[in-house]
Amino acid sequence: MFNISPLKKTELKIIHKKIDQKTKPLGALGDLETLAIQLALITGTKNILIKKPTMLIFAGDHGIAKEGVSIADSEVTQQMVSNFINGGAAINCFCRTNNIALKVIDAGILTPIENTQLIQSSLGLGTKNFSRFSAMPIESVKQGLKNGADIVYKDIKKNCNTFAFGEMGIGNTTSASALMHVLTNITLDDCVGRGTGINDKQLLKKKQLIEKALLLHQENFLSVDTTLAAIGGFEIIQMAGGMLAAAEKHAVILVDGFISSVAALVAIKINPLVKDYMIFSHQSDESGHKKLLDYLNVKPLLSLSMRLGEGTGAAMAMPIIRCAESFYNNMASFESAGVSEV
Amino acid sequence: MFNISPLKKTELKIIHKKIDQKTKPLGALGDLETLAIQLALITGTKNILIKKPTMLIFAGDHGIAKEGVSIADSEVTQQMVSNFINGGAAINCFCRTNNIALKVIDAGILTPIENTQLIQSSLGLGTKNFSRFSAMPIESVKQGLKNGADIVYKDIKKNCNTFAFGEMGIGNTTSASALMHVLTNITLDDCVGRGTGINDKQLLKKKQLIEKALLLHQENFLSVDTTLAAIGGFEIIQMAGGMLAAAEKHAVILVDGFISSVAALVAIKINPLVKDYMIFSHQSDESGHKKLLDYLNVKPLLSLSMRLGEGTGAAMAMPIIRCAESFYNNMASFESAGVSEV
Repeated sequence: MFNISPLKKTELKIIHKKIDQKTKPLGALGDLETLAIQLALITGTKNILIKKPTMLIFAGDHGIAKEGVSIADSEVTQQMVSNFINGGAAINCFCRTNNIALKVIDAGILTPIENTQLIQSSLGLGTKNFSRFSAMPIESVKQGLKNGADIVYKDIKKNCNTFAFGEMGIGNTTSASALMHVLTNITLDDCVGRGTGINDKQLLKKKQLIEKALLLHQENFLSVDTTLAAIGGFEIIQMAGGMLAAAEKHAVILVDGFISSVAALVAIKINPLVKDYMIFSHQSDESGHKKLLDYLNVKPLLSLSMRLGEGTGAAMAMPIIRCAESFYNNMASFESAGVSEV
Repeated sequence: MFNISPLKKTELKIIHKKIDQKTKPLGALGDLETLAIQLALITGTKNILIKKPTMLIFAGDHGIAKEGVSIADSEVTQQMVSNFINGGAAINCFCRTNNIALKVIDAGILTPIENTQLIQSSLGLGTKNFSRFSAMPIESVKQGLKNGADIVYKDIKKNCNTFAFGEMGIGNTTSASALMHVLTNITLDDCVGRGTGINDKQLLKKKQLIEKALLLHQENFLSVDTTLAAIGGFEIIQMAGGMLAAAEKHAVILVDGFISSVAALVAIKINPLVKDYMIFSHQSDESGHKKLLDYLNVKPLLSLSMRLGEGTGAAMAMPIIRCAESFYNNMASFESAGVSEV
């Protein structure tokens, strides 16, 4: 479905040479050098080119939320989507501050909003409660991957090559934790956390609901698609589709926090080559996130103890991407600056 | 000498209330909330106000460099100062990318440069080799604190309230390590690292030279001033003076990596109230830095394995400061956004 080219590792020698001639001790820019190497491989060896960085926030509702697995009700998803449209949320502030375009997508919220600023891409009025039913029919999974991809393709045509993936959806850490457990075999205890800040009793209930769902759907976990149909979320599927499409078009993917990383996991399970195009921006305080990053063997750029989602970690990491671009393209070499090579 | 007011902790209740009414779960912005609280206490409870962020790079040479404690010779200090002036160094790239004004100060380099873009504040043509002599006379310490302060006062008058402190000086990790050891009593082994990237043999020599200096100057370690005269550096002293002046004027101080943090340590030893105004931006890969941050009981915003100095960590952290300002001032409350309070 997604035809992703592996990065041309044959370019590595040229990239290393360019970085090592910059006026600094070898390796002194640490993780920023690693990042520049990845960006150069994705966007161009001669110069890194970050074009029109865009934050895509996918919003979706979850039937499981009815069981009380979050501190908030499902209506908050819609309210926060309005807040995004009106520019009042944390992610709006960070995108404005860091010059990132922001787009909000209805991937399937409970109560639709008519607003020309909202991208309509709904797969339904929330998923079904996956502790009792399949979250969605298998057709919605295929449609969701396509919808997410189409949103990215449209921006690619407008010359964007850098996408951040954020989300909003009351109940979505429950779906994400269940997906993480099934797709990684990491123990459920290590996959489930407090989300927005639930108490011990709610946390226990969240785990029990997932355990119930695991039994109910156990025969559906043989493929990624059927797993998503059983316990997935509309926003998670569309994010995965968007990531795969971005990689297909040689664009940079900024992964945000826990939910966004589970979407990345889904995308990687569909096509492992997508991982080369991913930058993991922030280690969330959501307890499962560190385990997931370790499983994926990636080091996030930031670790600011945030646990908000929306794309906030990715938005905060964008200036680091731009600094990598800037030093790679513009920093003087020992020769050009007349500095004795060290 | 520096008359620093403690922050008004009585404002904390108002600040917490403002943050907790924002449209997000309580505490969900993690370290960014801690940062916003500090910035609000420094710059204003109603709105955080970051004005004209300015990077000050203090350059100085070190007599100890003659002993071969760095991978580079002292001439590289002057070459890098020229590189800063010409806009070719890493710090130039990061300041341009993150909209930070950049000023370069000759705090005492070996071979002066005549250039109107360079702030002339030299205390001499490099310090003396402190393994054999006092690094400088005591008058230079007092003059250096004053010089650094004057540079900051000038920018304060031009309505700047946010200062980052970077440096350049071949040999300066040797002076900084010695200062750290004397001022904290942390073992010398934990204070001395590889700087620009010296080998095992050079590292051993660096430690032995400091041990020799500790014996030579042991009677001078009773006060901060005499310690600085014995084993300090011109740029380190002027940075400390600049930091103290910034705190005196209720400005925000961004501390960079190892050398900058040792200057912060010096400033704190002179007047502990300065610490309330300091933001530690990046944990350097220089081995002593983590120990120093632990000693100061601070958590840096970034940890990108860089070890370049110049202010690069502080420049990379500036967008985080701006995001804290932005969410604190502009993010909607539950009431204003019509979001159900969670």
